Amino acid sequence: MNAKTRRAKKVYEDTNRRLRALMLPFFLNGWEEEHMPPAAKPYRNKQLVELSSMEYEIHTGKSYKNSIETLYADRDSLDPVLRHEVEEAKLVSDKLAKIPKDEYLAYQNVLLECYPENFVRAKTTGDFSIVKPYFKKVLEYNRKYVVWEQTESLKGYDVLLDEYERGMTADKYDEFFNLIKSELVPFIKKVLAAQKPVHPAFTACTFPAEKQKAFCEYLRGVMLFDKDKTMMGESEHPYTNNNGNCDVRITNHYYENALASAIFSAIHEMGHGLYELQVAGDLQDTMSGGGVSMAMHESQSRFFENNVGRSREFWQRHFPVLKNIFAEELEGVELDDFLLYINRAEAGFIRTEADELTYPLHVLIRYEIEKGMFDGTIDEENVERVWNEKYKEYLGLDVPDAGKGVVQDMHWYGGSIGYFPTYALGSAYAAQILAAMNRDFDVYSAMGEENVGKIAAWLKEHIHKYGSSKAPSEIFENAVGAPFDPHYYIDYLKSKYSRLCGITI
Amino acid sequence: MNAKTRRAKKVYEDTNRRLRALMLPFFLNGWEEEHMPPAAKPYRNKQLVELSSMEYEIHTGKSYKNSIETLYADRDSLDPVLRHEVEEAKLVSDKLAKIPKDEYLAYQNVLLECYPENFVRAKTTGDFSIVKPYFKKVLEYNRKYVVWEQTESLKGYDVLLDEYERGMTADKYDEFFNLIKSELVPFIKKVLAAQKPVHPAFTACTFPAEKQKAFCEYLRGVMLFDKDKTMMGESEHPYTNNNGNCDVRITNHYYENALASAIFSAIHEMGHGLYELQVAGDLQDTMSGGGVSMAMHESQSRFFENNVGRSREFWQRHFPVLKNIFAEELEGVELDDFLLYINRAEAGFIRTEADELTYPLHVLIRYEIEKGMFDGTIDEENVERVWNEKYKEYLGLDVPDAGKGVVQDMHWYGGSIGYFPTYALGSAYAAQILAAMNRDFDVYSAMGEENVGKIAAWLKEHIHKYGSSKAPSEIFENAVGAPFDPHYYIDYLKSKYSRLCGITI
Repeated sequence: MNAKTRRAKKVYEDTNRRLRALMLPFFLNGWEEEHMPPAAKPYRNKQLVELSSMEYEIHTGKSYKNSIETLYADRDSLDPVLRHEVEEAKLVSDKLAKIPKDEYLAYQNVLLECYPENFVRAKTTGDFSIVKPYFKKVLEYNRKYVVWEQTESLKGYDVLLDEYERGMTADKYDEFFNLIKSELVPFIKKVLAAQKPVHPAFTACTFPAEKQKAFCEYLRGVMLFDKDKTMMGESEHPYTNNNGNCDVRITNHYYENALASAIFSAIHEMGHGLYELQVAGDLQDTMSGGGVSMAMHESQSRFFENNVGRSREFWQRHFPVLKNIFAEELEGVELDDFLLYINRAEAGFIRTEADELTYPLHVLIRYEIEKGMFDGTIDEENVERVWNEKYKEYLGLDVPDAGKGVVQDMHWYGGSIGYFPTYALGSAYAAQILAAMNRDFDVYSAMGEENVGKIAAWLKEHIHKYGSSKAPSEIFENAVGAPFDPHYYIDYLKSKYSRLCGITI
Repeated sequence: MNAKTRRAKKVYEDTNRRLRALMLPFFLNGWEEEHMPPAAKPYRNKQLVELSSMEYEIHTGKSYKNSIETLYADRDSLDPVLRHEVEEAKLVSDKLAKIPKDEYLAYQNVLLECYPENFVRAKTTGDFSIVKPYFKKVLEYNRKYVVWEQTESLKGYDVLLDEYERGMTADKYDEFFNLIKSELVPFIKKVLAAQKPVHPAFTACTFPAEKQKAFCEYLRGVMLFDKDKTMMGESEHPYTNNNGNCDVRITNHYYENALASAIFSAIHEMGHGLYELQVAGDLQDTMSGGGVSMAMHESQSRFFENNVGRSREFWQRHFPVLKNIFAEELEGVELDDFLLYINRAEAGFIRTEADELTYPLHVLIRYEIEKGMFDGTIDEENVERVWNEKYKEYLGLDVPDAGKGVVQDMHWYGGSIGYFPTYALGSAYAAQILAAMNRDFDVYSAMGEENVGKIAAWLKEHIHKYGSSKAPSEIFENAVGAPFDPHYYIDYLKSKYSRLCGITI
């Protein structure tokens, strides 16, 4: 590394430290935005937009840009972590520079105005018209965005897909979802016909929120969600957020008529959280200190939620604890009843509460709608209608209102278009990771242990510790020893549900 | 206003918007710092120091400095609010420029390391040695600071006193505290000899925290502490903080063996809060949008805590509600018993729990110690010993440990030296404000109303609405129609306690 590169490295690192510091107010605001005094919003949003403006200026400033260019030109002299980081930084910085500052800031403002307040209101009242004007603006911005950012090889919706999972395009997702459609849709029909009924306790009882919280606290121990470094809160839509690898926070939502909802949200979010907790400490002072991509993140959360959390072995260990807490409500309910309940395939309205098997259909619907947003067939005027039509087509359901339909998820109203497909991709990654892990040790027996330590250690070693210091595909392929193959996912689901329902594939 | 001034005004206002935005992370961090995951502290503190560094750079940057100089030079052309603001901004900016950046940032780091973690540990274990190294650094920095900032007329401790209350010096405080000593110390002796015993319920009972919280929620209505704009939390040491006039937050600490503690902390902090809530809305986009000084702030909190909150009229209205919540604990306790309890003069260890009469002696002790810090007689080696000697001398007490002694208050460990005297000054302001208000309407009858609306309206009109758009002395003198006169305070205390104890002055 020559003197010029060394100087650039210093500027690059100093600027990154500043950019990381500027993430703090957004992290803290996110944690309290659903609980803060409502009248405080307008002034708060002004401050956040001003901070976004500072972030934009630093990010697009000459000194930072020059430092990246210098480092990029001399990238062969850099250590691999820094080299990868600089390549990514160049991409991000080039992209940001293409966004006009006033459009960027106006968009931040639209998002702050929409989420959480108006989103929550629209969701709870089931009225899409409340978020419609915001959805329109999000869509307009994203349509402009893909034009600003398009390249020879990436156009339209692909620009966004690539952002959430580097290398993914609509062509690749089409192939993936076509496989899911052709393999799973007929299989789901068989399963639905063969399933046994669910024990009446699960639909008849009220499950007090306080007891649910007590069990989620217990799960914290199981999932190694160390109190020294984590927090659990509440919000309309459960999420995970982190500020470094020693401050990881999840939220949950407790429905007293649905025992499984908070349990699996907790496991799901702690799966995300464990990923961030296990990123190597020496990456914390770099820009590579967080999870590498959305699909990889979802692979971790969905792995714990489903592959681990809906297994017989996991509940052989933990069901007695659950039964102890809900002694009255679960009187006479056996482990097998519980396993049937948490694995029951069912055409439902809500993605986050869907079983493993029908889950990818929820994602498929969102993916098809997002594609439509960029081929000009879907906008704010017809998105609710199209949503409802697709739920009828794929799941046979009549959506009763927007809260159980197009406004159930926060993503579009928080500005994330192109994110949803990573949920299904992550689930497919998870199945392949499970197979790879099972070659190293008996995963199913490890699921029945007191905590997930053995599994977490494997994930740390093969995935988590790298943070985002390599490309997601590189981390994934090194971890599982092969390229991504969606057949693991199909096979996993078919094998699991055949066993559960006693049907042959 | 000429074109040059107009341009400067734009730069000045844009920069201020940025500085106000940078206050957000500190506000949010403060709100959660006692509740966040402990292992998250080091990374968090790095971010906060980085944000301080940005704030320092913006504040001392050429463009901001030049804008202030230009506006200052042309100050006759500015409207009165901006003119006052620019005069203050010039002072602050000149002062900041005298602090070496590395010293400034190192000091921010010392404070972040000390408070809250080590302060809380020292307080709860009663061990001064835990905070001793931090206290040493705070003292060293403040001794350097007064040298950097000294002027012809302000030297040593006066530099700090002036910062918390513009215009106050040790000479002026000496006069004030000498009056308190000569008038109150002999009077307190008389009161202590004449007092009736307290009803045994107050010392024998446990007062469940949940019930205390319920009563504090009730007080929220009484104090017009609107839920749309406020929050109540918990911390080791109660405080008020705000982010604009629509986000005002107080904390409390619930001691189950002391009913009065949380009640009067709540009223005190809501008094601070009401001040911020009632600053004029059109000042929110300026640098004049907060309370004007520490003494003025304390005058508002102490006014509500004592002049209103310990009055017979206030409790004639609210005691039945308290008794309803604590039906078991307060069985057989009458209004007069309660009034004697909350007004009982007693030599105690804890300032925040002191009665109105002995309170200024607690402040006097701290003031004398602070003076000693700057005349070279007091440092980290002897501060605890001197503290204990003075508690023996003025209050006849043997301090059992540092938690009930020198580490009971957070101020010094959060970097505030010169702040304490404003508590006593604020109490004295409050007495004079009460007299002025009572000329406009019958304040005592207003204290007995359902809420403090009438009193709050007077304070808004005469004090709160101005924020910091004028000098504190100007606001005070306009409000009460005369210069500050500490005899109102002495007279108020003597008259109140003579009535309570049936003694003649």
